[in-house]
Amino acid sequence: MRKNKKAVIMFSGGLDSTAALCWALNEGYECRAITVSYGQKHIREKKSAHKIAKLLGVKLFDLAIDLPWLKSSSLIDKNKKIPNFKVSKINGKTIPSTYVPGRNLIFTAIGVSLADSIGANTVVLGPNIVDYSGYPDCRPAFYNALEKAVNYGTEIGSSGGKIKLLTPLIRMSKADIVRLAIKLKAPLKYTWSCYSGLKRPCGKCDSCKLRAKGFALAGIKDPSLLG
Amino acid sequence: MRKNKKAVIMFSGGLDSTAALCWALNEGYECRAITVSYGQKHIREKKSAHKIAKLLGVKLFDLAIDLPWLKSSSLIDKNKKIPNFKVSKINGKTIPSTYVPGRNLIFTAIGVSLADSIGANTVVLGPNIVDYSGYPDCRPAFYNALEKAVNYGTEIGSSGGKIKLLTPLIRMSKADIVRLAIKLKAPLKYTWSCYSGLKRPCGKCDSCKLRAKGFALAGIKDPSLLG
Repeated sequence: MRKNKKAVIMFSGGLDSTAALCWALNEGYECRAITVSYGQKHIREKKSAHKIAKLLGVKLFDLAIDLPWLKSSSLIDKNKKIPNFKVSKINGKTIPSTYVPGRNLIFTAIGVSLADSIGANTVVLGPNIVDYSGYPDCRPAFYNALEKAVNYGTEIGSSGGKIKLLTPLIRMSKADIVRLAIKLKAPLKYTWSCYSGLKRPCGKCDSCKLRAKGFALAGIKDPSLLG
Repeated sequence: MRKNKKAVIMFSGGLDSTAALCWALNEGYECRAITVSYGQKHIREKKSAHKIAKLLGVKLFDLAIDLPWLKSSSLIDKNKKIPNFKVSKINGKTIPSTYVPGRNLIFTAIGVSLADSIGANTVVLGPNIVDYSGYPDCRPAFYNALEKAVNYGTEIGSSGGKIKLLTPLIRMSKADIVRLAIKLKAPLKYTWSCYSGLKRPCGKCDSCKLRAKGFALAGIKDPSLLG
């Protein structure tokens, strides 16, 4: 099968997925991006996704899914407070209340659906297991197993081709991600990481803190509103 | 971890998923069902899903996803004709135009999301590889690989529990499915299989033909409008 350079990328408009998108463009992939509303408090990130996709000349699909049971997550239920601290480590026993059940599985499935529709052999995703929030669906073992399933369950995978799930940031520290993004001239100014749902980054949630730590360790001033 | 009997079932209102739902209820599972609009021409099946779920006393989540690229499928694009014949066999080289890229991956992901939210250890699905349309995402290898991924990527799976993907019909013939449904007193009268999008079953599409063959071989008159 002809190797092509089309890629689908799941793109939130945050620091990580912006770095991943710039990485994919730099690798020569022709990218289609997908952003998804799923009830997240920080719907503000979509504005960033649109702005950045436009700046980079990448076609963006803007989707919405309404899964009423996701209110179990503090990232979605307005009556649940976003925790202001890191509650878990890699393979730690506590999964934070911001975990959204099945989110990365659904996101990857949606990306694979587009890839299988347009004949793209690559789906790029931005998960990370170093400076991360302890979500089980960010682990390499998850994506490795899922890639196998994807290739049994798609037209590309069952016709002699292969869909690769690429997670270029998965073993990088947040500081490394910041350095990569700067090197690739990613428009970090427009990225959005805060979970709080406020109009400006809160600086207190897990996501703001991990971001600040990344910029600090990289010795770079955050050009966004948080910096 | 305590073994529970909660199950999530992906439920279209067709013959197969109705048989699978009755199977799960008969096995003692407390079921939550999910039906999904994804642009299918035969949106009429949702009426069946609601009717049957109500009859069986099963809570039904009615979801909609809008994935614009799915117009590659004749099951969705009104300008593409549903083929009136079976165009492929198991592991055959031709995948029919009614294939919806990534559909069963997305459906399973949605079911897993609900399962992981409510602490259900089981997701029941109705795919079948005997009298089927040649879709790659109906194969046992796909579900086996996906179950592994699911257990890396969920709270249940990463906390010492396990989510099982059960496909009770996967190796049954359509006649066997009809017999099972009759044995379990499934309300087959209300099930809907036709792909055409017409108000009555067309009797010509792949799905109508497989259904008719199943009833014929089981020696049972189809109690639905097709019969």
